[in-house]
Amino acid sequence: MSAPRFHVTYRITPDDPRPIEAHAKDICIEETVEIPEDCVPKGHWEAGIVGRIESITPRGGSPGDYDVNISYRTDIANDAIPNLLNVLFGNISIRRGIKIVDIQLTPDQLKAFGGPRFGIAGIRRDLKVHGRPLATTAIKPLGLHARELARLCGGYSLGGLDVIKDDHGLIDQHFHPFEERVARIQEAINAANARTGRVTHYYPMIAGRFDQVEAQMAFARAQGCYGVLIPPLLIGPDTGFHLARKYGLAVMTHPTFTGTHFHDPRHGMTPAMLLGRLFRIFGADISVFPNAGGRFTFTGQECHDLAAAMRGELGGLKPGFPSPAGGMTIEKVGAMVDSYGEDTALLIGGALLKYSPDPEVSARAFLTALEAAAAGKARP
Amino acid sequence: MSAPRFHVTYRITPDDPRPIEAHAKDICIEETVEIPEDCVPKGHWEAGIVGRIESITPRGGSPGDYDVNISYRTDIANDAIPNLLNVLFGNISIRRGIKIVDIQLTPDQLKAFGGPRFGIAGIRRDLKVHGRPLATTAIKPLGLHARELARLCGGYSLGGLDVIKDDHGLIDQHFHPFEERVARIQEAINAANARTGRVTHYYPMIAGRFDQVEAQMAFARAQGCYGVLIPPLLIGPDTGFHLARKYGLAVMTHPTFTGTHFHDPRHGMTPAMLLGRLFRIFGADISVFPNAGGRFTFTGQECHDLAAAMRGELGGLKPGFPSPAGGMTIEKVGAMVDSYGEDTALLIGGALLKYSPDPEVSARAFLTALEAAAAGKARP
Repeated sequence: MSAPRFHVTYRITPDDPRPIEAHAKDICIEETVEIPEDCVPKGHWEAGIVGRIESITPRGGSPGDYDVNISYRTDIANDAIPNLLNVLFGNISIRRGIKIVDIQLTPDQLKAFGGPRFGIAGIRRDLKVHGRPLATTAIKPLGLHARELARLCGGYSLGGLDVIKDDHGLIDQHFHPFEERVARIQEAINAANARTGRVTHYYPMIAGRFDQVEAQMAFARAQGCYGVLIPPLLIGPDTGFHLARKYGLAVMTHPTFTGTHFHDPRHGMTPAMLLGRLFRIFGADISVFPNAGGRFTFTGQECHDLAAAMRGELGGLKPGFPSPAGGMTIEKVGAMVDSYGEDTALLIGGALLKYSPDPEVSARAFLTALEAAAAGKARP
Repeated sequence: MSAPRFHVTYRITPDDPRPIEAHAKDICIEETVEIPEDCVPKGHWEAGIVGRIESITPRGGSPGDYDVNISYRTDIANDAIPNLLNVLFGNISIRRGIKIVDIQLTPDQLKAFGGPRFGIAGIRRDLKVHGRPLATTAIKPLGLHARELARLCGGYSLGGLDVIKDDHGLIDQHFHPFEERVARIQEAINAANARTGRVTHYYPMIAGRFDQVEAQMAFARAQGCYGVLIPPLLIGPDTGFHLARKYGLAVMTHPTFTGTHFHDPRHGMTPAMLLGRLFRIFGADISVFPNAGGRFTFTGQECHDLAAAMRGELGGLKPGFPSPAGGMTIEKVGAMVDSYGEDTALLIGGALLKYSPDPEVSARAFLTALEAAAAGKARP
């Protein structure tokens, strides 16, 4: 009875007239023993192996919805990310009307997964940037020669950007093979850093087959990259976090292929829980997400909940940077700084290409707008 | 211009009044170059690096929806599963009103991904079972001692089941550590096979951290397991297929954590495309899915489309078994055989525990019902 338990809050919108208790119990069974209730061995109930309903709170929605808190034994999920996700939202992902709105792991679980290795303070220390958001961009488009991508990065770095990541579509294509691209870009950034005396960090995209990703991580590390961009749902929810930790690389997460969680308030996980809470627990130093008002459909509230999940108190884990992106422009910098505050990695991608053909000019304009906005905010 | 291209049909339900062409072009750009249209280098359009709209077909829905066929250069996705998914449904997963309803890869892509290694014919040959569906079960519940799980498996095997898989919640928990569980279960099945002269195959669940899964595969292989159960979205869409191929193991896929694709006809992928077409192309010999009429919400039509995607002609790839599951019972065997026909791995899980405390008795009842249904179907 005393095995430690972690807690998940499911927002349930029942799609049949059974009482809410029956829906909640379905989850308790489906995510653990997965057998008819009357077949569950008596000892299983006593030992708490079945999920346990801790509270049911009506929300007064129409149709009626409820926040149901369910606890699970930690030793069912172990310290492995796939196992945790399997318990949180495995088979029930295929049922309707279940949304994860809160996840509370135990201190031991948080310690085992470990959270960000660098975090906001570590990245700021290494960039020597304080008192303003980070100026971040994505290098694109796919299909340019690696030489040309490196030229753009050199210019962005000379112009003062803090963080450059690969566009997530840059994988290992023959027009910019992974190793050539990463080596040339890091080289161009090193040269610019040497000229300016400033620091720009580069996060190459890590993706590919199971047998490719570790070699990519090792290569990025050997080239002196500060971090890596990983797409957890494409290469495996554990894979990128695990390898980045092994090779001592900072982690920026990308939301590609996650979006089906977010279309409907009745299904999936909230952006805050998947891209914020969980990715941070797993090790995200920076979490990229599509900002409200861009090309995507997150609401302002969802974005702020996500930012809070990255930065708020969480059992001693380091905070990480939220990185609003997806259709952002230099004109929006002021509003974004007002909205997200200082500890943010503001990401402007394609709009820098549009602003000027010279990447140094675009970068300088971005940085100027950012510093002005941050200074304006700092003054009364 | 002559680079080979593959084709995807997106069902688009526009959520703003722009013309359908604009929505379709959004996808072409978002999934490739991901920059403002007027920044795309002219050579990129000419080289076909941007996705290309091949056709737009109004469906007459309300609100208006359209089937839009878009082609992409194969060398953008390469032969890596994460890259292919990134192009098919990466960032656009976070936009609304886009559903993948068809995917047509090129012959070279199909050859590179390879499809099922064993397929229906290979599994039948090795089981020596012809002319009827396979009798399949899941060993459960989580939390029993490995010894007890092995006892159940021995009984199921004596009773004549063809295929036994782990319940997908059985990972590497201390009450049934992976190696102990797999060794004991395979041993019990070997003993039963020796007694009956029949063949039962065992598929242990492979999940865990990046650094654990390969050792699990190697262990399953060393114990003589015929195949493995893999959860592609939990361990990485490529991981399990890649390793099973490396170790010569048959692949059964599990749909855990995939369900957010299926809640709404306007978002995600259809079950047929994700659990059928793609999983088969990636290597699924058997694809488990939640049958209509059980605890989950797939419709009969969705289930049959999925079965067709597993078994239909697909550029010379072997067909695989669809495996309807999720709340099936012995009473439903006749209806399931009528509905799915012979080349099906009928999966009854918890209901066997409910049928009798003696697994051999339950298995025999299942097999008897299956043989009767198959014989009835064979006769005029």
